[in-house]
Amino acid sequence: MSQSQSRLSILLRRRPSGAPRQEDFEPRHDPIPTPGPGEVLTRTIFLSIDPYMRGRLSDRPSYAPPVKPGDVMTGETLGEVLASNDPRFTPGDVAVGARGWQSHIVSPADRLAKVDRDGAPLSAYLGVLGMPGTTAYSGMTDIGRPKAGETVVISAASGAVGSVAGQLAKRAGARVVGIAGGADKCLFVQQDLEFDDCVDHRALDLAAELAAACPNGIDVYFENVGGRVQEAAFSLLNPFARVVMCGMVSQYNEAEFPPGPNLGFVVGKRVLIQGMIVSDKPERFAEWRTLAAPWVREGSLRYREDVVPGLENAPEALAGILGGRNFGKLLVRVGPDPA
Amino acid sequence: MSQSQSRLSILLRRRPSGAPRQEDFEPRHDPIPTPGPGEVLTRTIFLSIDPYMRGRLSDRPSYAPPVKPGDVMTGETLGEVLASNDPRFTPGDVAVGARGWQSHIVSPADRLAKVDRDGAPLSAYLGVLGMPGTTAYSGMTDIGRPKAGETVVISAASGAVGSVAGQLAKRAGARVVGIAGGADKCLFVQQDLEFDDCVDHRALDLAAELAAACPNGIDVYFENVGGRVQEAAFSLLNPFARVVMCGMVSQYNEAEFPPGPNLGFVVGKRVLIQGMIVSDKPERFAEWRTLAAPWVREGSLRYREDVVPGLENAPEALAGILGGRNFGKLLVRVGPDPA
Repeated sequence: MSQSQSRLSILLRRRPSGAPRQEDFEPRHDPIPTPGPGEVLTRTIFLSIDPYMRGRLSDRPSYAPPVKPGDVMTGETLGEVLASNDPRFTPGDVAVGARGWQSHIVSPADRLAKVDRDGAPLSAYLGVLGMPGTTAYSGMTDIGRPKAGETVVISAASGAVGSVAGQLAKRAGARVVGIAGGADKCLFVQQDLEFDDCVDHRALDLAAELAAACPNGIDVYFENVGGRVQEAAFSLLNPFARVVMCGMVSQYNEAEFPPGPNLGFVVGKRVLIQGMIVSDKPERFAEWRTLAAPWVREGSLRYREDVVPGLENAPEALAGILGGRNFGKLLVRVGPDPA
Repeated sequence: MSQSQSRLSILLRRRPSGAPRQEDFEPRHDPIPTPGPGEVLTRTIFLSIDPYMRGRLSDRPSYAPPVKPGDVMTGETLGEVLASNDPRFTPGDVAVGARGWQSHIVSPADRLAKVDRDGAPLSAYLGVLGMPGTTAYSGMTDIGRPKAGETVVISAASGAVGSVAGQLAKRAGARVVGIAGGADKCLFVQQDLEFDDCVDHRALDLAAELAAACPNGIDVYFENVGGRVQEAAFSLLNPFARVVMCGMVSQYNEAEFPPGPNLGFVVGKRVLIQGMIVSDKPERFAEWRTLAAPWVREGSLRYREDVVPGLENAPEALAGILGGRNFGKLLVRVGPDPA
């Protein structure tokens, strides 16, 4: 895990068909670059692995341009500053914002944000305090708006976004029901995250189990999954329910999308279904860090991390998160913590 | 058309299977009733026929309770006060709010609103200035929010709701494209309502024709229809588009609903899809009458009415609106205008 004297990059070799595989990527070794004017060189400590990355591997139209075969794969990192041509950063600083599946990254200083090393464990800045936590916060604040006594259902409840979304709904006084894949995840959601209930989406009769866990219907549904999980949740929506459309990971590997729900119920129940991308409200990132860092320090905002060692394993990690095989916020450990 | 000395009521005889038919209803003649304390007797001049009525004929769960077989069918009327036990109404007044497929109706005075006989043609208070007009106003004000330069698509564009929704979007400076059934309706939508374009939903390749009419995509879609019209419109939605879910009349006669759109696009495009029922914001009714009555008087807000003579023809009129055979706001003429 020690830093080598060359840079390792993981490049997209070809567009995956279905689930991404190791062979869809290729490593490249080259010299560690030197930052130009206004630039900063970081060595990567953690790389964040997130479901949205599947969209960057495809040339299907999306809200962000895809990675081209031959290019370095994209992703958010946390790293230590090794060299800086900007007065805001000095070697030894830790920063988030450098992008790429790379051991060393040169970035414009404007893209980086320094991290308070005493504020929280470093990895938290890519997870509970970073993009996934902010996604949950923005989704609940801007769309879900859970109220005391309401029932809130969170899919992918043990994941980086879902775990925060559900805890925010608990803080708002809602009854919170998770949906997760497998008994271990459900146990974690109930015991560690303290959701009121959790349903295993592998259950034979998911709709019936979810209905039993939501005797008063669903007022807020935080959608990360799609497919039959969505179908089960939509069938229980109450009048004036809000659906936070954050992701539909169950279909990200699919070439053709299956049909969805008949939307007749949306009229009569006056349901609101709204999509979101966290970067639409960039101000939410700093807001959330300020709000949640004390909760992380005091231990009242729980999270779980799934750390894969070695940048060379990032492709397999991505395949894992798309198949639900991670357990908690998925990170790749690229280099050691700073001394 | 003169008033008889007995009351005619149209009762639901049995729940229709598929399209409602005359035999699903039955007439009843009985004496004209006398209003009790706080009540008002009106003789009906116009009965409004609206697509939502199909929901009242079914025992499928809905936002409002169904009409039971043997009960008088529900519907909004405009009528002349014949007798009043409330100081706010005197014989000769014209009022809206009495409900029922009946030639004479006794209502609590609180349910009625007096109509300004010089403000607009009486029928307008059931259409362009009434519930359908208010629906369009509320949907555009609270959900659609069209902006200058945006593209707004209106399904059932020649209908009571769609015709107002599109004219409101024109007033907001949007490019407005209607979808309507047949060349006559499309001509009316373009020439009389002055929409920028109109597409016939019976076109073989509706999606291609709609795409050609919306070269910049769709920013607001006002949904009255569902089915393949919805599919065509959804495929053209722009990032941050708003969908006003007002109705899906194409499936109201269906026992089983077809699948709907895969909702993956909602996330990446941050689309908002929201259902509405006009009665959720009752304050919009008076707001709209105040705003729009001058437009109706000056002729700048256009509308078309389709008037069916005779209360006994209300069942056929309802079947017609569900099949798109009306042309403009559908009304049943039950009795003559006041002298």
